[in-house]
Amino acid sequence: MVAQVIDGKAFAANVRGQVGAHVAKLKEEQGITPGLAVVLVGEDPASQVYVRSKGKMTVEVGMNSYEHKLDVDTAEDVLLALIDKLNNDPAVHGILVQLPLPKHLNEDLVINSIDPAKDVDGFHISNVGLLGTGQKSMVPCTPLGCLMMLRDHHGSLSGLNAVVVGRSNIVGKPMAQLLLGDSCTVTIAHSRTKDLPDVVRAADIVVAAVGRPEMLPGDWIKEGATVIDVGINRIDAPEKGEGKTRLVGDVHYESAAAVAGAITPVPGGVGPMTIACLLANTLTACCRANGLAEPEGLTA
Amino acid sequence: MVAQVIDGKAFAANVRGQVGAHVAKLKEEQGITPGLAVVLVGEDPASQVYVRSKGKMTVEVGMNSYEHKLDVDTAEDVLLALIDKLNNDPAVHGILVQLPLPKHLNEDLVINSIDPAKDVDGFHISNVGLLGTGQKSMVPCTPLGCLMMLRDHHGSLSGLNAVVVGRSNIVGKPMAQLLLGDSCTVTIAHSRTKDLPDVVRAADIVVAAVGRPEMLPGDWIKEGATVIDVGINRIDAPEKGEGKTRLVGDVHYESAAAVAGAITPVPGGVGPMTIACLLANTLTACCRANGLAEPEGLTA
Repeated sequence: MVAQVIDGKAFAANVRGQVGAHVAKLKEEQGITPGLAVVLVGEDPASQVYVRSKGKMTVEVGMNSYEHKLDVDTAEDVLLALIDKLNNDPAVHGILVQLPLPKHLNEDLVINSIDPAKDVDGFHISNVGLLGTGQKSMVPCTPLGCLMMLRDHHGSLSGLNAVVVGRSNIVGKPMAQLLLGDSCTVTIAHSRTKDLPDVVRAADIVVAAVGRPEMLPGDWIKEGATVIDVGINRIDAPEKGEGKTRLVGDVHYESAAAVAGAITPVPGGVGPMTIACLLANTLTACCRANGLAEPEGLTA
Repeated sequence: MVAQVIDGKAFAANVRGQVGAHVAKLKEEQGITPGLAVVLVGEDPASQVYVRSKGKMTVEVGMNSYEHKLDVDTAEDVLLALIDKLNNDPAVHGILVQLPLPKHLNEDLVINSIDPAKDVDGFHISNVGLLGTGQKSMVPCTPLGCLMMLRDHHGSLSGLNAVVVGRSNIVGKPMAQLLLGDSCTVTIAHSRTKDLPDVVRAADIVVAAVGRPEMLPGDWIKEGATVIDVGINRIDAPEKGEGKTRLVGDVHYESAAAVAGAITPVPGGVGPMTIACLLANTLTACCRANGLAEPEGLTA
């Protein structure tokens, strides 16, 4: 079997296209423009790249983008006051505080000060609790993107055996909740799991989110399984020249693609979906805030 | 193999004894008496029995018990005003609203109006979110009781393969979170699971919480596995005489006990642990409210 490649770049472009169409309709019919506020504290280079990219795509789908860049030494009460202002600003439908925060700031406190209805990252404990009890919530972007791709590929996920490798709060755990919500039998595996190869071999759906380069080889994958690779790891690539690097996932792509039924590549798989889902969440939050019907297919 | 019977009645008595000893110490050293408020709306006979039993055991461990019995027609704002009063009453460390509520009351709204720090049932979405992200929370009583028995039997649960059958918000899902927190590999199975017998057969730990009498037969159980039976189902027992009934679990006890390493009976297994853990949670909440060290071994 040679796996179908799930093209996350094209999929994400399609999601952004749907978001853009809804935004245009919202503006025309309701006179409402969704707005996303992104707060960046400090000058972490990777975070700066993400924030720039988010801002660019927010504008591209027709939303308003509000960027707040604060000094690395910003006091906690100053940051909390800004979040309070954004919570109360009717033009802001989504608020994202770029993580990680400088060490002097309490990340949990900051995230939980965001109005849950505007928490487009889905990290507020109220949203975790809503998702964990099968209620309407803001869903973390990366697992939401994985869910969208799985639904698109499989139609119904009901009864499929899904194995999530990794138990982080931002990917593994919410991913498990989403798959359970779609009636998969869900196994959460992690570093303490015994016989991990056999656990993964039983899966119809494998979601790898461990952050270890090429940890899952093809001979762990059941023939025909769907493999979603959340990992983005930079490794040395001497074959490209001295000092060169390349990106790989948590799955060994070549060997896994030889047995899987479908697989997401790295890069170009899950990665592009994260920002697309952030925009989808902002649109969803805007519709809810205005008592309008939510766009279909853009949330869990 | 003949399974060791896990005596929940004795275990619960031991937990209540530990709680009682801590309460005595709290009174003597700090002059603090933990208080549990139970709110019952209406006259559902089963709920009345539970509330009476909770009140009796609360007093037995030396805590204050505050019972609030409201008319079945109580308006939502009256109930919410009572909860607000209890939230602000420093003598009340735990608040439990007996479920189910009469249909005209919004259960989610009512539960989420309880101060999460006093939510000794652990049903507030903030507590679900805290548990779901591995943070300190109030843990639902029944799964907490199961966890205590499992820890007692196994010592460390790390790396064990745990299968939770049932995905309810009050047992299955929090149980899965607790087992994951103790580093089990966790599978959540349910009515849509394919090949449920094989899924259960792979488990070192089986937690059955489906509410279907004797649904899991012994030949689904791996030799030596630990079986925790959360089900309490009343079935006809014509062998005891016409119109007689008896209680059974979700597991077929005789056949499962013949292969399991350890098993909880029904009645006398998980059941008695629920109230014991309610008292443990009230003590924990009292210690946290007063900035005192939490008693060890009484929470997750």
